[in-house]
Amino acid sequence: MRATVMYGAGNVRIETVPDARLIEPTDALVAVTRACICGSDLWPYKTMEHSADGRRMGHEAIGIVDAVGADVRTMKVGDLVVMPFAYSDGTCVFCHEGLHTSCLHGGWWGRDGIDGGQGEAVRVPLADGTLVVLPVGPDDALMPSLLTLSDVMATGHHAALAARVGPGKTVAVVGDGAVGLCGVIAARRLGAEQVIILGRHPDRIAIAKEFGATDVVSERGDEAVERVRELTGGFCAHSVLECVGYEQSTVTALSIARPGGAVGRVGVPQQESIPTTLSTFFDNVTIAGGPAPARAYIEELLPDVLDGRIEPGRVFDRVISLDEVSAGYRAMNDREAIKVMIDF
Amino acid sequence: MRATVMYGAGNVRIETVPDARLIEPTDALVAVTRACICGSDLWPYKTMEHSADGRRMGHEAIGIVDAVGADVRTMKVGDLVVMPFAYSDGTCVFCHEGLHTSCLHGGWWGRDGIDGGQGEAVRVPLADGTLVVLPVGPDDALMPSLLTLSDVMATGHHAALAARVGPGKTVAVVGDGAVGLCGVIAARRLGAEQVIILGRHPDRIAIAKEFGATDVVSERGDEAVERVRELTGGFCAHSVLECVGYEQSTVTALSIARPGGAVGRVGVPQQESIPTTLSTFFDNVTIAGGPAPARAYIEELLPDVLDGRIEPGRVFDRVISLDEVSAGYRAMNDREAIKVMIDF
Repeated sequence: MRATVMYGAGNVRIETVPDARLIEPTDALVAVTRACICGSDLWPYKTMEHSADGRRMGHEAIGIVDAVGADVRTMKVGDLVVMPFAYSDGTCVFCHEGLHTSCLHGGWWGRDGIDGGQGEAVRVPLADGTLVVLPVGPDDALMPSLLTLSDVMATGHHAALAARVGPGKTVAVVGDGAVGLCGVIAARRLGAEQVIILGRHPDRIAIAKEFGATDVVSERGDEAVERVRELTGGFCAHSVLECVGYEQSTVTALSIARPGGAVGRVGVPQQESIPTTLSTFFDNVTIAGGPAPARAYIEELLPDVLDGRIEPGRVFDRVISLDEVSAGYRAMNDREAIKVMIDF
Repeated sequence: MRATVMYGAGNVRIETVPDARLIEPTDALVAVTRACICGSDLWPYKTMEHSADGRRMGHEAIGIVDAVGADVRTMKVGDLVVMPFAYSDGTCVFCHEGLHTSCLHGGWWGRDGIDGGQGEAVRVPLADGTLVVLPVGPDDALMPSLLTLSDVMATGHHAALAARVGPGKTVAVVGDGAVGLCGVIAARRLGAEQVIILGRHPDRIAIAKEFGATDVVSERGDEAVERVRELTGGFCAHSVLECVGYEQSTVTALSIARPGGAVGRVGVPQQESIPTTLSTFFDNVTIAGGPAPARAYIEELLPDVLDGRIEPGRVFDRVISLDEVSAGYRAMNDREAIKVMIDF
């Protein structure tokens, strides 16, 4: 089968790889119908050292179940399923706590012999604990929004929960990428009154406003902090969603949280320590977040997508075939595209 | 009047200073009957650069109201009051949210012309929002425990709340100083099932056990992490109370939180950035805490002290007169005393 393999920074290709097939009785074999490229895929695209064997890519997909192992109970051949960005057993202590990304038997796509989502098929371990059956056909118009449940919409929701967004709250979203835009949706969905987006790309800002952002801050660093302060009556934001992961964006996020506020960070940190100042401590600002347990949120978010109450699929502004995946990476890396969908 | 003044590292003395007196109509004048030395007073005792003017010390006190301004409503001359470690108006948005340490009109003792607690008298700004009247006489046997409501018991409680301690939870307390010991009390009071204290001073560990610690870890660094892991079935602690503030203690605290757990930090950080690893992010560990809004907690904790259900005053293992304050600092700094009370 064909799948996306990255061999180093800027070097990502479609290759022929061994066909995905059932191994364990808890596996499902899924023929991918839609996948996409994630902002986090751009980290290795920018920095990965050369690897002769390469690394299988992709962790967001929708597909049709082609085969199931003997122990799989919750899906059958022909079902359309969405695949969260981590696999999980659904039964361990952490899954029961809703933290499927820390599943005792789970893991990540594209590592340790597990297929990636940017390929024709995927062996899905622990299928019952991982996949969610969708009640629509594979060509439904909602497909882009449903695909965001794999990662970006779930991640925006996670950032909002971690930042304790609630009715009437003032929220700031750092980053206008696909996750930040979904963070705007999530903040409004949870009742935020004021949603300030920090970003400077006109196309993305336009979408943020359509998603419900009330204010835009295009400054950076200290000037951004000052602008947010002005926009919030001098207090800064109750809830800040850090959707980038860089040192500067993290410092900004922590600096625009009001005393007693919270920062939900979902941008993969590009540094070990958390860069901040003592004011984070003296202002009792909470830092929460991490990889989103997408599997825990799909059932909550799915009805809103099916009813059209939220339209996170609008973050996709380019659709490519699998053969064009290299150009898709380049377009996202060059910021020519917000988020690229692969239609098989 | 006489009060404690610090002139530099290791140089703390009793000096004659201008008498405290009412200035604003919202002031109360309090004659101090008990005060104490805080672990955080040891930071300047270790590191303060020489200052010709010196710095007034102390932020924990109980005393008798000697005079009140015309606008003071909730206390009268002769009342015994406890003074939280920050003053606050009790009416601003942050006080209403229970975060009195971020009061818009509040501040800290011993700065900007405000008296310190380690002196014969204190002008208390915003007396109605700051002081709490105690329903006992100044020589009551409960005085040591009541004095801890100024800071250490409230701070231990804050650490426990920030770390989301609750019934049945596994808790680790990093640091066996007075705050850590009060953290043990707070964790048990909030229903923690297992309370692991990380410390190595036999006298302090003995008190921790009496306060309800179930396990002791005297190792440090990676060995401490391994021990906590063993003691918690391999998962680490739901809630970690960081009661020191050093880089190493912070790294340890963040390393012994289980996935989805929380660290409540109340030790004043001795570095700007938060030293940690990416596992804090990938495990979705929350970092919360800061200076405790003691004023918010006194009314909740006071009944438990009055009924004898908690005895945080047992952290005082030395009582001195004001004249002996220099020796008191030395004893705490040399770890000859856990916490020193000043009896006027």
